[in-house]
Amino acid sequence: MENELTTAQRAKVLIEALPYIQQYNNKIIVIKYGGSTMVNEGLQRAVMGDIVLLSLIGVKAVLVHGGGPEINEALNKMGKKTEFIGGLRVTDQETAQVVQMVLAGKISKNLVNLIGNIGGRAIGLSGIDGQMIEARKMSEELGFVGDIVNVNTQPILDVLEKGYIPVISTVGFDREGNCYNINADTAAARIAGTLKAESLINMTDIAGLLRDKNDPKSLISKLNVSDAPQLIRDGVISGGMIPKVNCCIEAIRRGVKKVFIIDGRIPHSILIEVLTDEGIGTMFV
Amino acid sequence: MENELTTAQRAKVLIEALPYIQQYNNKIIVIKYGGSTMVNEGLQRAVMGDIVLLSLIGVKAVLVHGGGPEINEALNKMGKKTEFIGGLRVTDQETAQVVQMVLAGKISKNLVNLIGNIGGRAIGLSGIDGQMIEARKMSEELGFVGDIVNVNTQPILDVLEKGYIPVISTVGFDREGNCYNINADTAAARIAGTLKAESLINMTDIAGLLRDKNDPKSLISKLNVSDAPQLIRDGVISGGMIPKVNCCIEAIRRGVKKVFIIDGRIPHSILIEVLTDEGIGTMFV
Amino acid sequence: MENELTTAQRAKVLIEALPYIQQYNNKIIVIKYGGSTMVNEGLQRAVMGDIVLLSLIGVKAVLVHGGGPEINEALNKMGKKTEFIGGLRVTDQETAQVVQMVLAGKISKNLVNLIGNIGGRAIGLSGIDGQMIEARKMSEELGFVGDIVNVNTQPILDVLEKGYIPVISTVGFDREGNCYNINADTAAARIAGTLKAESLINMTDIAGLLRDKNDPKSLISKLNVSDAPQLIRDGVISGGMIPKVNCCIEAIRRGVKKVFIIDGRIPHSILIEVLTDEGIGTMFV
Amino acid sequence: MENELTTAQRAKVLIEALPYIQQYNNKIIVIKYGGSTMVNEGLQRAVMGDIVLLSLIGVKAVLVHGGGPEINEALNKMGKKTEFIGGLRVTDQETAQVVQMVLAGKISKNLVNLIGNIGGRAIGLSGIDGQMIEARKMSEELGFVGDIVNVNTQPILDVLEKGYIPVISTVGFDREGNCYNINADTAAARIAGTLKAESLINMTDIAGLLRDKNDPKSLISKLNVSDAPQLIRDGVISGGMIPKVNCCIEAIRRGVKKVFIIDGRIPHSILIEVLTDEGIGTMFV
Amino acid sequence: MENELTTAQRAKVLIEALPYIQQYNNKIIVIKYGGSTMVNEGLQRAVMGDIVLLSLIGVKAVLVHGGGPEINEALNKMGKKTEFIGGLRVTDQETAQVVQMVLAGKISKNLVNLIGNIGGRAIGLSGIDGQMIEARKMSEELGFVGDIVNVNTQPILDVLEKGYIPVISTVGFDREGNCYNINADTAAARIAGTLKAESLINMTDIAGLLRDKNDPKSLISKLNVSDAPQLIRDGVISGGMIPKVNCCIEAIRRGVKKVFIIDGRIPHSILIEVLTDEGIGTMFV
Amino acid sequence: MENELTTAQRAKVLIEALPYIQQYNNKIIVIKYGGSTMVNEGLQRAVMGDIVLLSLIGVKAVLVHGGGPEINEALNKMGKKTEFIGGLRVTDQETAQVVQMVLAGKISKNLVNLIGNIGGRAIGLSGIDGQMIEARKMSEELGFVGDIVNVNTQPILDVLEKGYIPVISTVGFDREGNCYNINADTAAARIAGTLKAESLINMTDIAGLLRDKNDPKSLISKLNVSDAPQLIRDGVISGGMIPKVNCCIEAIRRGVKKVFIIDGRIPHSILIEVLTDEGIGTMFV
Repeated sequence: MENELTTAQRAKVLIEALPYIQQYNNKIIVIKYGGSTMVNEGLQRAVMGDIVLLSLIGVKAVLVHGGGPEINEALNKMGKKTEFIGGLRVTDQETAQVVQMVLAGKISKNLVNLIGNIGGRAIGLSGIDGQMIEARKMSEELGFVGDIVNVNTQPILDVLEKGYIPVISTVGFDREGNCYNINADTAAARIAGTLKAESLINMTDIAGLLRDKNDPKSLISKLNVSDAPQLIRDGVISGGMIPKVNCCIEAIRRGVKKVFIIDGRIPHSILIEVLTDEGIGTMFV
Repeated sequence: MENELTTAQRAKVLIEALPYIQQYNNKIIVIKYGGSTMVNEGLQRAVMGDIVLLSLIGVKAVLVHGGGPEINEALNKMGKKTEFIGGLRVTDQETAQVVQMVLAGKISKNLVNLIGNIGGRAIGLSGIDGQMIEARKMSEELGFVGDIVNVNTQPILDVLEKGYIPVISTVGFDREGNCYNINADTAAARIAGTLKAESLINMTDIAGLLRDKNDPKSLISKLNVSDAPQLIRDGVISGGMIPKVNCCIEAIRRGVKKVFIIDGRIPHSILIEVLTDEGIGTMFV
Repeated sequence: MENELTTAQRAKVLIEALPYIQQYNNKIIVIKYGGSTMVNEGLQRAVMGDIVLLSLIGVKAVLVHGGGPEINEALNKMGKKTEFIGGLRVTDQETAQVVQMVLAGKISKNLVNLIGNIGGRAIGLSGIDGQMIEARKMSEELGFVGDIVNVNTQPILDVLEKGYIPVISTVGFDREGNCYNINADTAAARIAGTLKAESLINMTDIAGLLRDKNDPKSLISKLNVSDAPQLIRDGVISGGMIPKVNCCIEAIRRGVKKVFIIDGRIPHSILIEVLTDEGIGTMFV
Repeated sequence: MENELTTAQRAKVLIEALPYIQQYNNKIIVIKYGGSTMVNEGLQRAVMGDIVLLSLIGVKAVLVHGGGPEINEALNKMGKKTEFIGGLRVTDQETAQVVQMVLAGKISKNLVNLIGNIGGRAIGLSGIDGQMIEARKMSEELGFVGDIVNVNTQPILDVLEKGYIPVISTVGFDREGNCYNINADTAAARIAGTLKAESLINMTDIAGLLRDKNDPKSLISKLNVSDAPQLIRDGVISGGMIPKVNCCIEAIRRGVKKVFIIDGRIPHSILIEVLTDEGIGTMFV
Repeated sequence: MENELTTAQRAKVLIEALPYIQQYNNKIIVIKYGGSTMVNEGLQRAVMGDIVLLSLIGVKAVLVHGGGPEINEALNKMGKKTEFIGGLRVTDQETAQVVQMVLAGKISKNLVNLIGNIGGRAIGLSGIDGQMIEARKMSEELGFVGDIVNVNTQPILDVLEKGYIPVISTVGFDREGNCYNINADTAAARIAGTLKAESLINMTDIAGLLRDKNDPKSLISKLNVSDAPQLIRDGVISGGMIPKVNCCIEAIRRGVKKVFIIDGRIPHSILIEVLTDEGIGTMFV
Repeated sequence: MENELTTAQRAKVLIEALPYIQQYNNKIIVIKYGGSTMVNEGLQRAVMGDIVLLSLIGVKAVLVHGGGPEINEALNKMGKKTEFIGGLRVTDQETAQVVQMVLAGKISKNLVNLIGNIGGRAIGLSGIDGQMIEARKMSEELGFVGDIVNVNTQPILDVLEKGYIPVISTVGFDREGNCYNINADTAAARIAGTLKAESLINMTDIAGLLRDKNDPKSLISKLNVSDAPQLIRDGVISGGMIPKVNCCIEAIRRGVKKVFIIDGRIPHSILIEVLTDEGIGTMFV
């Protein structure tokens, strides 16, 4: 099918991207990447391709990744059992080290490798590098699950200025030298807010916010943050989406201009969201 | 028809542009723009859109324009009669002033205005500004028709560095303070050569070089410059195409990496040539 | 006579210029150049010589030129008739194009050529270049006669920083892509004000403001802007001088430190005004 | 005892460091850190303290670390069995991932954390970041054990310029997107050579080269590289020291001015070697 | 004795300096140097060594020197008699010239020479250079004894930025072209205050402020500036110390963070004060 | 008389300076200033005025001064007797200190003060500052009379870059920390040569080189350096002029473009030489 694209159609696509390129030129876009979209190799390559393209056309792309499944896998392999309290993993020092190792050593560097392979230039930064994410214990019970005390964006800006795409693993540090597991959605929102990013894009496994979960056509394409509480009360936003939506709202509140939840399962959904008239997913305003 | 483009198709076009964007990133492309493609208002807007897009994605685009038809029109309106010798207009001082006025005051500034309107930033430079194109008389008979003595690219580089697209009118100056009409094809080749441009794109009214003029499918898509003399002897390259082809060869000789003759009548032919797998027109190597 | 200048006298002139050079060092002086002083070739060369000298001794000289007579001449040659309302030319699109062509293509580039010939470096900028002068219609009747909406001094500052003398033609643009004829006195005052220039020098065909028109010795060498309304009521300032004086007052109001009306018919009147103890013409304070 | 240091003694130590500080000011010192000295927590803190001090007094310190024991530990925990050929671990893709994860995610980030805790600023870079270390298979049998094809020092220089201490994990990449385990001694020598470092310091578990293994007083404090082959033949250099010594020789050959093997078990041995008259260990010349 | 320092002790001294180096990194320390500590050649070399060391480890050291004894000696040699009023020398123009000559020509340049000899880079600046210290007569009777009208720190900052240690002689100038003798303590306090220095160190011939002059153990190691008046009333601060203490207080008032009076007779007292846990002398807070 | 200068004449002088200003723009001119022209206060002010003017119009002026008479005066006042061998003063350490003190402390700073008073910005540099002039003993007998071993122009370039006029006293240093008296003509030639100055101007008490000493009209206005030996043999160049001429020749040989001996007794002779058509004195080519 695609072979049938005429040159006129190709040119049209490119030229339609013009106003979006103008709008995002030299602006920061933070992309939160995680979940099942990270597992599919073809999708992963497509996402990294999108980010390289954005960076080449003058966008300052910052990638923040998660990695729950791979952490589980590593803990399992090592025979490390973990308990959960309120859905959060009780994280002793050894577990925190595994989290750090998987996020900063495996996932982050593999993404950097893939970006390099596609022709981009990236550096993997954890929240420990350049003392980027200072954390403290959320509660004594949970151990090294961190609340963010402070985000120091200097290492991110330094790496951007030198022309690299920062690939950020959300582990944190404290003044005693401990390391922490930090929720990636929360960190991405906080980083985007502190950077006063133009945009924060959350890639998920769902088709944006649906008014009716079973009807993909019921997508809420634009959501005023003041309407969110009602949607939560109505159960339209529920379960795991609640904290994600709260992160989006928090990002808006901290000064990010546009926040999106997009469907990461669609190849090149970032490009489509950023560079075309078609929005996919939900925009928070 | 175009409405039927899927998001997947759109993304594919954008992502296919990636290697080309990488290749041309921060490189200079000189675009020679002239002839009938300049007269059609829709085409003009498309060409300027292409150039703004290139400049936004990190290409240093330099536009060199001609203007024969508008010069004729202005001379006619003013009742100024001109003689021709060997196809070249005998150019007295008054005529040279009209040429300068039309090129540098009308065409150049209208293109700058159009670029601004589309969202780009341009500055119109004539060969007189910053003493860019030093000229001398080609012959006494022809008057102020100029051969290029020297090209000073400093004003072009200064304007590029400040983030503007230079829009160049090919008039020249000499040490006595005269102004000259300079052939735009020759000037574009010389400027591209002196700038060590990555690419020179000549927009024409034809479908590139055709082996058989009457068969658009006989396009020569790649021409080794060493084969050109034979093609001229064979009459494949003839008439007005001979000097155009010679300019292309000269540009290659002066260090331009890739030189193209493309069909300016196709909308967005620049984008298609630069950013897609499809070449349109003839590439000189 | 001049041959009899001793070396002591020469040195004295140079050394007397010292405090003025100190005062204007690295400061912006906007020079409005127009009227009959622009027609005389010897005077024109003297004026450009003055500006090159100022720029060499560290003054950031900005030249704003008019061009009424040459516009008339071009319109006449083209057989284009124009109507006047309230002293202002009714300007249709075609006329506006002629204005742009004459100002930006002929006068501006000829001044740039002359400056280059003397040994300076200049670039001709119209109000269209870099979207410098945004305009709107003064009235529907008058057509493309423009009021200034906004002055963007970035292109002027960019060109100054790169070491060129900007030679500015006062045509404007609007968001629809039209071009406008802008009064050069008004534009010069507005540009000087936006640049927070140290000085604005208006070159005219008269010996500054005379208390008695017929007595050149009755020159008002210093005028407090608050006294201007009374002088207008008294008829001392009258006719074409009223708008000129109003532009001077406007420039003072917008933050220009010193504004002068000087006699452009005296060779090197700029140098004499700027670099010697002798003031010629009227200073507004 | 140390409490008895007089102020005069303290001052003497500081002032004696002066010529060394002058000599290394703004120069690059590459420190290879590995083996058992890395396991002792107190020693580790002392080493990082030394590096922070060097970086504060104007030395551009670059840390290259190994991590054999921790890799073994992780593989064991994961129940991953590995075979050895000629002392080198057969490294399949999964093993290579574990190596990358431990080096770049655990060791590197823990060192960065410790440096931050002491008051320095560091960023962990693997050979994958910024495509620093390009590798290829040493042999098919060994799998992803890499020979270095090319070292790109740009990311190291970028990170240094921004004021961070680069902490380098020696994993490599290839054009197919694979990752490789690279010998840390070899990589440190190659990096130091490509950086034209002033000095390369190899921290080991031994007291430098001893002429008689059992006599710590038989230290060879200076070794001419041309004498090394004879020492190998004589068995003075033997076993695991042979490749280490060969790396030192290679570094000298590639332009590093001074190469040391020092005893990492002595606290602050780096400071003593770099900033005092006392050499500890063996210097290659 | 000193020979018995172990490597561990040496390393300990260096590593203990770490937090102080961090604290003073890139900060300005003004050192007032004068009195008898300047006469002893060994001490002088030690002081300059300390300053070179500070500058090498990233401190911006600024040296302000006095020179009373050498001025007296020069005046005596020249047979120039001088009168004193209230302890201040009546300074005619000729005497002022001798002061300038001795301070700026002899002492300053000898210190610069010594710094160069040790391996540092210095430039001698008087208060006349770059119009640094503008002065006026303190009283008509005293002649050219100057009160400071204004301190222009630009020349100091320029010289620091270019990597030199400024060695400052406290002579001043006025708008009539006269030169003045300026009290060095006063000038150092004023310069430190205007530079918003991190620290001002006054080197004296005494062991800091003693509660009991005859008991060196009665050192006041920390003095709150609000307690100074009482100490003066009590006679603890008396004689020549009163103006010195007042200068310290003035420096604190003008924004210097830490001000010290230290015992210049102890070799390397600056290093001990700045880089070790031991304070010697009195700190004003 | 001078009152009779017309504005036209004034303007003519200024505009005639234009090509010279262009030629010397951003170029280095070294001015050797000494002898009796330095004693006359009016002349001194005129010379400093010339230098300030040159620096304001973009010339990088470097002033090198002598000071024989004032050194003698100071030595006499101090009752210091000195012997001469072959016309050169035997210089013990004490005498060398007086030379340094007078040149660097008195003359240099007084010139800096005067330049500041006129409105310029200067810094006095001796050959000791920034280790500019390294010297060694010419002979043991003469003591600290120095031959130049090396000129380090970095401090001169640093001071010029920061916008100051360097005022240079020609004392030197050696690696033992001694100071030396250096001949100012020799030093000026060497400095100009090392700086690759555009021009070296030697101000003397004579009217340039005269073919007949008694006839001021016999001035040799241009001297080819190859003709100098013959003129020395003929006695046209004799006595104290021989070393001066040799310095000029040496400067030419070391790459200075134009070297002049001009009559310092004529007020503003520098300006006349540099900025007018009239040459005064002798030019070496």
